[in-house]
Amino acid sequence: MNHNVVTFGETMLRLSPPDHERLEQATNLRLHIGGSEMNAAVAAARLGLNVRYVTRLTRNALGQLVENRVREHGVDTSEIVWTDSNRIGTYYVEFGAAPRANKVIYDRAYSAISEVRLGEINWQKILSDAQVLHTSGITPALSSSAADVSLEAVRIAKRMGVTVSIDLNYRAWLWTEADACKVMTELVSQADILITTEEDTKRVFGICGESYEDVARELAQRFDLDVVAITLRETPSVWKNRWTAIAYERGTDEVHRAPKFEIEVVDRVGSGDSFAGGFLYGYLTADVAAGVRYGVGASAIKQTHPGDVCLATLEEVEQVLSGGSLRIAR
Amino acid sequence: MNHNVVTFGETMLRLSPPDHERLEQATNLRLHIGGSEMNAAVAAARLGLNVRYVTRLTRNALGQLVENRVREHGVDTSEIVWTDSNRIGTYYVEFGAAPRANKVIYDRAYSAISEVRLGEINWQKILSDAQVLHTSGITPALSSSAADVSLEAVRIAKRMGVTVSIDLNYRAWLWTEADACKVMTELVSQADILITTEEDTKRVFGICGESYEDVARELAQRFDLDVVAITLRETPSVWKNRWTAIAYERGTDEVHRAPKFEIEVVDRVGSGDSFAGGFLYGYLTADVAAGVRYGVGASAIKQTHPGDVCLATLEEVEQVLSGGSLRIAR
Amino acid sequence: MNHNVVTFGETMLRLSPPDHERLEQATNLRLHIGGSEMNAAVAAARLGLNVRYVTRLTRNALGQLVENRVREHGVDTSEIVWTDSNRIGTYYVEFGAAPRANKVIYDRAYSAISEVRLGEINWQKILSDAQVLHTSGITPALSSSAADVSLEAVRIAKRMGVTVSIDLNYRAWLWTEADACKVMTELVSQADILITTEEDTKRVFGICGESYEDVARELAQRFDLDVVAITLRETPSVWKNRWTAIAYERGTDEVHRAPKFEIEVVDRVGSGDSFAGGFLYGYLTADVAAGVRYGVGASAIKQTHPGDVCLATLEEVEQVLSGGSLRIAR
Amino acid sequence: MNHNVVTFGETMLRLSPPDHERLEQATNLRLHIGGSEMNAAVAAARLGLNVRYVTRLTRNALGQLVENRVREHGVDTSEIVWTDSNRIGTYYVEFGAAPRANKVIYDRAYSAISEVRLGEINWQKILSDAQVLHTSGITPALSSSAADVSLEAVRIAKRMGVTVSIDLNYRAWLWTEADACKVMTELVSQADILITTEEDTKRVFGICGESYEDVARELAQRFDLDVVAITLRETPSVWKNRWTAIAYERGTDEVHRAPKFEIEVVDRVGSGDSFAGGFLYGYLTADVAAGVRYGVGASAIKQTHPGDVCLATLEEVEQVLSGGSLRIAR
Amino acid sequence: MNHNVVTFGETMLRLSPPDHERLEQATNLRLHIGGSEMNAAVAAARLGLNVRYVTRLTRNALGQLVENRVREHGVDTSEIVWTDSNRIGTYYVEFGAAPRANKVIYDRAYSAISEVRLGEINWQKILSDAQVLHTSGITPALSSSAADVSLEAVRIAKRMGVTVSIDLNYRAWLWTEADACKVMTELVSQADILITTEEDTKRVFGICGESYEDVARELAQRFDLDVVAITLRETPSVWKNRWTAIAYERGTDEVHRAPKFEIEVVDRVGSGDSFAGGFLYGYLTADVAAGVRYGVGASAIKQTHPGDVCLATLEEVEQVLSGGSLRIAR
Amino acid sequence: MNHNVVTFGETMLRLSPPDHERLEQATNLRLHIGGSEMNAAVAAARLGLNVRYVTRLTRNALGQLVENRVREHGVDTSEIVWTDSNRIGTYYVEFGAAPRANKVIYDRAYSAISEVRLGEINWQKILSDAQVLHTSGITPALSSSAADVSLEAVRIAKRMGVTVSIDLNYRAWLWTEADACKVMTELVSQADILITTEEDTKRVFGICGESYEDVARELAQRFDLDVVAITLRETPSVWKNRWTAIAYERGTDEVHRAPKFEIEVVDRVGSGDSFAGGFLYGYLTADVAAGVRYGVGASAIKQTHPGDVCLATLEEVEQVLSGGSLRIAR
Repeated sequence: MNHNVVTFGETMLRLSPPDHERLEQATNLRLHIGGSEMNAAVAAARLGLNVRYVTRLTRNALGQLVENRVREHGVDTSEIVWTDSNRIGTYYVEFGAAPRANKVIYDRAYSAISEVRLGEINWQKILSDAQVLHTSGITPALSSSAADVSLEAVRIAKRMGVTVSIDLNYRAWLWTEADACKVMTELVSQADILITTEEDTKRVFGICGESYEDVARELAQRFDLDVVAITLRETPSVWKNRWTAIAYERGTDEVHRAPKFEIEVVDRVGSGDSFAGGFLYGYLTADVAAGVRYGVGASAIKQTHPGDVCLATLEEVEQVLSGGSLRIAR
Repeated sequence: MNHNVVTFGETMLRLSPPDHERLEQATNLRLHIGGSEMNAAVAAARLGLNVRYVTRLTRNALGQLVENRVREHGVDTSEIVWTDSNRIGTYYVEFGAAPRANKVIYDRAYSAISEVRLGEINWQKILSDAQVLHTSGITPALSSSAADVSLEAVRIAKRMGVTVSIDLNYRAWLWTEADACKVMTELVSQADILITTEEDTKRVFGICGESYEDVARELAQRFDLDVVAITLRETPSVWKNRWTAIAYERGTDEVHRAPKFEIEVVDRVGSGDSFAGGFLYGYLTADVAAGVRYGVGASAIKQTHPGDVCLATLEEVEQVLSGGSLRIAR
Repeated sequence: MNHNVVTFGETMLRLSPPDHERLEQATNLRLHIGGSEMNAAVAAARLGLNVRYVTRLTRNALGQLVENRVREHGVDTSEIVWTDSNRIGTYYVEFGAAPRANKVIYDRAYSAISEVRLGEINWQKILSDAQVLHTSGITPALSSSAADVSLEAVRIAKRMGVTVSIDLNYRAWLWTEADACKVMTELVSQADILITTEEDTKRVFGICGESYEDVARELAQRFDLDVVAITLRETPSVWKNRWTAIAYERGTDEVHRAPKFEIEVVDRVGSGDSFAGGFLYGYLTADVAAGVRYGVGASAIKQTHPGDVCLATLEEVEQVLSGGSLRIAR
Repeated sequence: MNHNVVTFGETMLRLSPPDHERLEQATNLRLHIGGSEMNAAVAAARLGLNVRYVTRLTRNALGQLVENRVREHGVDTSEIVWTDSNRIGTYYVEFGAAPRANKVIYDRAYSAISEVRLGEINWQKILSDAQVLHTSGITPALSSSAADVSLEAVRIAKRMGVTVSIDLNYRAWLWTEADACKVMTELVSQADILITTEEDTKRVFGICGESYEDVARELAQRFDLDVVAITLRETPSVWKNRWTAIAYERGTDEVHRAPKFEIEVVDRVGSGDSFAGGFLYGYLTADVAAGVRYGVGASAIKQTHPGDVCLATLEEVEQVLSGGSLRIAR
Repeated sequence: MNHNVVTFGETMLRLSPPDHERLEQATNLRLHIGGSEMNAAVAAARLGLNVRYVTRLTRNALGQLVENRVREHGVDTSEIVWTDSNRIGTYYVEFGAAPRANKVIYDRAYSAISEVRLGEINWQKILSDAQVLHTSGITPALSSSAADVSLEAVRIAKRMGVTVSIDLNYRAWLWTEADACKVMTELVSQADILITTEEDTKRVFGICGESYEDVARELAQRFDLDVVAITLRETPSVWKNRWTAIAYERGTDEVHRAPKFEIEVVDRVGSGDSFAGGFLYGYLTADVAAGVRYGVGASAIKQTHPGDVCLATLEEVEQVLSGGSLRIAR
Repeated sequence: MNHNVVTFGETMLRLSPPDHERLEQATNLRLHIGGSEMNAAVAAARLGLNVRYVTRLTRNALGQLVENRVREHGVDTSEIVWTDSNRIGTYYVEFGAAPRANKVIYDRAYSAISEVRLGEINWQKILSDAQVLHTSGITPALSSSAADVSLEAVRIAKRMGVTVSIDLNYRAWLWTEADACKVMTELVSQADILITTEEDTKRVFGICGESYEDVARELAQRFDLDVVAITLRETPSVWKNRWTAIAYERGTDEVHRAPKFEIEVVDRVGSGDSFAGGFLYGYLTADVAAGVRYGVGASAIKQTHPGDVCLATLEEVEQVLSGGSLRIAR
């Protein structure tokens, strides 16, 4: 089977109290899985791409749970690296309500993927039938060996002619802006596609344009990128957000836009990742304009149900993009 | 006991994932019962009418569950027809959030009521002490035999001088607009009261007036109806709707209006049915003007709690109609 | 250990159906504890004060549950009076959605605290190391003996030079406006700080000024108070409220204001009590201006999670007061 | 409609933590309704009798909940007396595991039924079409006025030729053995049928025979009873009990026995009440021998599901009595 | 990828009330998937075989849910046939407690698989790389077309030299013993391996030997089978069963036995299917003796957790087979 | 306040799937706290001792949750050491059913307590008013610095004349038998009381006597101990265990025994720790004989409800020790 997209990164167990409870009062935690590149993989697979997800997992019930819930969506997990040591990272999400923002506590240090070593993953084989390799700025932030493996993957992909897509995804809990700048400059320089937000761009690369379009253009030039996509969120309250994205296509110097959605937010974690997955679907099956639209459509729906991974279908994404009614069809 | 209102139609088991989950991710489903005419029966009974509900159920724990939850609200279920074969219909509801609309999957084919036969229900006896027979456009859409029994019921009611109330309730999953037009024309022609929406009227009868009032007037004339009530919903988002209704009274050529409510929507399924139940309460205890008010009051409250059936009390309906405060009384 | 604040009053078990269910349909009730002065105690303790809570409880699993959940937040419970008779009061909360308001059913008569007797509580000892005694208008409303003990406490505090803080908290289910006026006049006359709402002030003391500030000034004069704080809620809908407060400081004739918050309301019960706890924190560690700010900050956060007691941390309160972003920090 | 059986007594809300949790750790309580005579009513109605249940309830959502869940099973609730004052009694059940026994905390004082007054219930009318009046030793224990009304009911029944059935049901939390003896002697002296346990008989009447049969015979003679039924439970552990009953028929001097069941106990509360309901079904439709069998069959099944009321069907009771297999029929 | 095992049959949604509730009282239903051949597929895949599962599903969220939860365990679902019509079958399980047996209500008529047509499934392709085709007596019982397709599959497998394994699985709700005998005779005559119970063998083929071994031998002879495996369950109560199996190997005339397990039963539905999956694992990786051991080990563990499908790992199966301790390893 | 007992060690978050689910299928995890020395602290405090618990926690919502749930039971937490780094350890429990044993997955490496440093805890102050210092073999196994601090604590206690109690608690996941032997020999040599199991004694110290009494005697001699208590568990199945203990008192050369309990096991994790807490209560308030009885009574009850910590009351422990009935008191 031809794998159009390969994604690489960490998947964590996500634990979150129900019903807007605070962690301190929780007696029950909802269990989901989450991880930027895995989320992107699931979104892309659900829309119709062949997707393989690569990570490193500890061989116990928790690692198995992660693999199960990834392949549940049709993602190929056969190249996951298994180890008997380390741990599966976890993180905790408290869902807020204005004026209390959502809050995240990470407990991901010393995870199996953070101890991945050069040579453990057979990139040559994995990328042999791939069109795109997608990873994010979280993976190299996990540890220096994870950074090495990220760079290794991206370089091999580049050499093999596989399109490289990077989601900048700056995580201040994991590294400093200076460290991120150094490593991400190397990574993004090998990339063809960059997905980011205005805020991350500013923190990591110090780029702040007059407009989103300017920022995208500047990134494309600085790193010699084909496409720069920027997602845009407005947060007038916690339960109601506005969401859209633009994509700058360097070849044509065009800026592509998607509809802006008023979102009733059930769970916004993982939106950017679903954008990435949807973008790759639209981009690979059509063009950059389709990419930004499918990215926004998929990630808009993702925010309306619990969990990090997007559970939309292709038909539903197309329906919201076409301005579908909020009535019940029956 | 004098039964002021008799309603006739299907009750299904309703299965819905909690917490805005999608069906694909559900491990738990909330179980409610739902069905247009049963919903109307419960609303009317809770406000104070004597109500009998007639349907056909399979004799197993699921059929028994349906009867239990209907008579829980004081509705008389003694004329339900029981069979050892067939099944209880089910349907699934996914609760959405903008831009994802609520979604319904029906699994109601081959239900016990869809196989009801002429003569199985003793309408003569059932209607002997009734003031109103209420049914909807869903029942005849279930099967041709259910259509036959609907017509039989309406004709006998007409003959016995029982007021006939019909909720148009077009269900595109069950029949075509052409089939609906044919059968509903027959049914509505026997009716005294028609409850509908602008959209259903247009799809089934092709009637689109300049205004709701025009539509109501045209329906009243075409089908020689005493009252035409039209419910009106605006859906700026999934969690916040606006809801009201008008009723045209042919005898006085008056249009009666109810307050328009801003609704924080917990569960909008069954609103129109609760309107019908509330309308009948107001109409039978007072007049058309009261009908439209009680209908809107009851159905406004219904949307604020889970489940298809309205759990308001008479006192609460009157409170919201009188513009009750949103503070906590203590 | 030095106890800066002592609060006195009833704690009840609170039972509430989940997911906006109505009580009639509930098969599961969430169990929290709630009580005005206990809520204030928890809020103050969580922000950093040394707090002791005094009440009277029945010695069974329910009474023990109450003590546990109070000391869970670091509140000293060692002076609670235990009895083998009476009961723990309960109350039921139905969470609404516009146009259905939240609804409360009290079942608190004959509780252990309502049968507290003069002399049972050793106020001399309890107040010996206290800076503030805080109670509310609910305690004297429970029974005449509870009123006697409230007065006893306040008088001893006054005599010992302990600042007396009263939350007016009128409960129409417990006593008439006339009775409240009589008793509360006595109590408030001994107080230094009064916390109230415009509505309660009007009902109990018949005071209605042109503005909140006028009301506060009039109260301060009539009862010779140092500080009068008034909380202000606007309820455009059930799920979205606006919340703030002012505090009038008689010494300087200044009116202090806090930011006004747009609140996405998860659970508004206990907001005023958290205001009191937060106010005392700000007032004792800084001044009246800080009091009103910490009061509003703590009580704004309290409304965003389930339960009567405030689960904010000092850091979070300061964050929302400084206009913290609604983005996720990661 | 002919009411074969009328039962009279209290229904409480029952609150119990799930999953063998202790009350102290509960954050969620399951809500059921329970009450000896109501439980008996439901069991009898489900098996096929016409049953009316009489009590006194507070007119609020909790009282309404009680009525709903009684009529859900087809029991006639039209003669319930409603009041705006008092409260609905509650009780708490902790489910144990050996060596920790199940534990009950009652909070039933001052309930609406405990304040029932002579003349409030129209016994003449209610009993006019009844064959049996059933009540228990709990009702007169609630208050002296409830005792008066119990006696009134029993006397009127006696006078009207209605069979009187009493479940002795001694509750040490409600009254002393001496008080119980006095009142129950009066009540049982009017009765035709007595249902009890060996332990209660000993505590209330001081009767301890060599065998169950002797006890039953002595009771029948002392109180001039037609039938004395005694339920028998062995409790080798909390989760596994043995359960059966005997019935002594004075007319024939026969002792009737039922099969002894090994019970995997899910919830044993209400077993005796279901026995009473099942007994009345068997007795009224056949004879004493059938009574004891249907009583044991119904109450055996009741212990296998949550809740005080028996959810068995007639078919299921007959199946377990005929020694049905524990395999799954499919 | 080489598919060692292909299984074919229906998967249903399974709905069951929690906590030993009866369906009549349920407000929540647990959602699992279940189906004999799918269960076998999951068990075999989890132990380490390459497994493909073939069925026919309706293209909606419910059909998608089924596919997801099958491939979650690494089973290949790429040859599932999708249709826009029909429905996903459902069934309801009530979990009992002695003396109340577990109870099942099927609602599976008119499902997508029951309307499968000859030629819709490309058996030639599907079986090209298979070692074993496994199906059961449920599939041909669903409809005559499903019986045709079952026979088609088995005949093509036979012709292609693929080992045919049949689980007799008689379902009295679906067809008569006579019909089952006729169709199953045809099917089993093509088979190499038969898995069954003594009871089913007697009902379908009228075979009752003196011992399990005799029955197995007679079956092997009558249908020219290589292996006959018989699972054995004793049900002293609902929560505690004894479970084992034997397998007769015709080539050597040997009877192979597995350990007998005392099972604390959480959920026994699907045990036989897990036996089949475990048997195929042992048989294909070793021999008949291993087959019966792995079959019993896997199915013993399956009964200890909720759901129809076996969640054991190979390591766990081997641990229980080697008589592993019931202590906690830490 | 005088602190009779000080305990020292780690508290983790415990995550466990409900209803005998396996981790792989969980979507919800129950959240408890657990940790050997904390469990002992809670048991001792609930029975009536003054108890202080010392640990090191990360300053976030998870660390705060741990402190809250410890002080909920009246344990003094004021000497807990807080840090901004590290993590709160977690562990996962799968509840089994025969033949599937309970299973534990630890994820406790790099926790705050494992990085505790010499000098961080002010033992001089903490032990100044203590009678007993209790810790276990888990704490020194966490890291070499945790071992250093354990030794430091024990030595200072010894020097100050505080009784030292050690629970051997060997954890094979944390260290080898050889390492445990070396460190525990040092620790136990300073101790007065040793609590252990036969199995741990054998693995750590290689001691296996003919009987439990021999083992206890040998331990007492080898390490110069006053008391050696050994808990004894028999596990005929997962849901039914037998549980008791003996204690050897060196001064009198007596062996004290407690009743042996048949336990219906809801949650056996933490039993040994509750034994320790109960033992210290009996020992400090009476003697060794009382110690072993209260230890067994408290830990027997602990196994009958969810969670690691014992929720018994003193009255309940005395009730089960006196052979209390399994009937419901009412």
